[in-house]
Amino acid sequence: MGEFELLARVRERLPAGGPRLRVGSGDDAAVTVPGGATATSVDALVDGVHFRREVASPRQIGHKALATALSDLAAMGAEPGEAYVVLGVPADLDEDECLALLDGMLDIARSTGTDVAGGDVTRSKELFLALTVVGHAAHPDDLVGRGGARPGDALVLTGEIGAAGAGLVLLQNQDLSADPAFSAPIEGTNDGSTNEMGAALLSRQLEPRPRLAAGRALAVAGATAMIDVSDGLGADARHLAMQSGVRLRIQAEAVLLAAGVREVASLAERDPWRFALGGGEDYELLATLPAKRIEEAKRAVREAEGIELTAIGEAVAGEGVEIRLPGGEVLEPEGFDQLD
Amino acid sequence: MGEFELLARVRERLPAGGPRLRVGSGDDAAVTVPGGATATSVDALVDGVHFRREVASPRQIGHKALATALSDLAAMGAEPGEAYVVLGVPADLDEDECLALLDGMLDIARSTGTDVAGGDVTRSKELFLALTVVGHAAHPDDLVGRGGARPGDALVLTGEIGAAGAGLVLLQNQDLSADPAFSAPIEGTNDGSTNEMGAALLSRQLEPRPRLAAGRALAVAGATAMIDVSDGLGADARHLAMQSGVRLRIQAEAVLLAAGVREVASLAERDPWRFALGGGEDYELLATLPAKRIEEAKRAVREAEGIELTAIGEAVAGEGVEIRLPGGEVLEPEGFDQLD
Repeated sequence: MGEFELLARVRERLPAGGPRLRVGSGDDAAVTVPGGATATSVDALVDGVHFRREVASPRQIGHKALATALSDLAAMGAEPGEAYVVLGVPADLDEDECLALLDGMLDIARSTGTDVAGGDVTRSKELFLALTVVGHAAHPDDLVGRGGARPGDALVLTGEIGAAGAGLVLLQNQDLSADPAFSAPIEGTNDGSTNEMGAALLSRQLEPRPRLAAGRALAVAGATAMIDVSDGLGADARHLAMQSGVRLRIQAEAVLLAAGVREVASLAERDPWRFALGGGEDYELLATLPAKRIEEAKRAVREAEGIELTAIGEAVAGEGVEIRLPGGEVLEPEGFDQLD
Repeated sequence: MGEFELLARVRERLPAGGPRLRVGSGDDAAVTVPGGATATSVDALVDGVHFRREVASPRQIGHKALATALSDLAAMGAEPGEAYVVLGVPADLDEDECLALLDGMLDIARSTGTDVAGGDVTRSKELFLALTVVGHAAHPDDLVGRGGARPGDALVLTGEIGAAGAGLVLLQNQDLSADPAFSAPIEGTNDGSTNEMGAALLSRQLEPRPRLAAGRALAVAGATAMIDVSDGLGADARHLAMQSGVRLRIQAEAVLLAAGVREVASLAERDPWRFALGGGEDYELLATLPAKRIEEAKRAVREAEGIELTAIGEAVAGEGVEIRLPGGEVLEPEGFDQLD
């Protein structure tokens, strides 16, 4: 099947766009009516670097690619608008796999109210994806960057972390995933041999969900800075601290670990805190906000996304990040993978 | 050099953004204040498919990638706004080549008033680029799609065509480029062995310029449909005819051929008309508009872009495209490469 035919079949699958989208795929450009401000983020994913076709299905690859791109919009507190998709298709990815990949994207597009408004398909030696996502807000000041944290702000985190990293360990290690703690055939999981807890961990690794509703709720509740946890809590806290010019103090004990994370860390002979704080890809949101607005923000996140918001520390004058472990030890991650 | 270091060096090179750009590269997303409508286009380019590193320098590859992406905005009559750049960098593309590639983009960004507002860099097996460009207009109706041509409209074309195709022939054929018609060392050309005419043809192939000012002028002058000539005049006329539901009649004799095109076609033993009408990548604009506005549009394009606008045919009821050659023969291109 040639590129033109594939593009035509892709276009057939695209649902009608929302009210912002005036002209979709098929013209020189998509035409949209944006909000008063737009947030635009670009992500590239390459087979063998960002995902592995051996362990993730095409549908999962498509799902995760768009979900993680949208997570950047969640971290801005933006309303999701449009996605533009570039696919580099190698000879060994057949038509059905291409369309399954697209279907994975369309699942997450539908559930988040995102229009897939355009794209391009090309031949390539390896499978790659480049995603551009555009989010909207009424005014630029409604969007939350990484640079606005101030000393005295509270540091909050949505949901639980460590699950995506634990899922990755299970995927990469047959022995661990066969452990009674996680095994027992469950339909719909990647290897058909995990129990409910194992399946949940794999799902967090292979099919993450962007916290778009929580991001908007946090923006409204006065978040001064926000970032999504993609590189790991320690590394992403550093990004936020650097751009805001503050020091972030994190009480590890306050951080909620997902079910199964301690068990996986134990089986992998890793310290559960270092494992959870260093592992990336949880796509939870880390934000700062005035301490007096914590309760309002907790209620808003619970209502919007059905998950907990936890106060895990504070911003103080200075720079960098310090993480106080339950035993009293204090870590100061310097690099991107220091904790991992 | 790692990806983070390369990204940091790339960011250092980015000039300050224009008034629309509130937050540029380095946060979760770029923040812009758009116009009342945006036109967004995505293009992917892969080494060996869309360009060849053997004949194009990194700077030329970067230039052409952004120029051709912006050409889609020209074809909408949009004001250029932001570009987002994804680079897949193979092991044999060194740091200086990466930065030269970026410099080629920054040249064209500067000369067109485009902000490079974000991007991503990743390792890959082969060099690939994915470009997202965003253009602006006050209102969606100010943007010109492919679907608005009506029977009775005149068909107009900016500039001259055939040069990019002729340049490609010269690049691919050492014997032809050594012909006295084109040879003689000229500084700054790719192989250092072409005269002024040859250099102009190579430049149209390797360093095209998007007709952004002409596109906006045509939109204001009442263009009902517009497309950029990327696949070839015959093929792009077909796209426009199909989406508008009209038949386009083209008088080949009225089409301006660039200097040197007849000579290259002759040396390559090709019919000059079939060669020029079938060759792509000229990035001129093909548009329809009410016949009574032709003179106004000609003046506007001359003032805005310094090039000629030529009436080359008309839209009539029906479908498809017919091209009347000077000898009286009538071609009806059916496929994308029928004329080539």
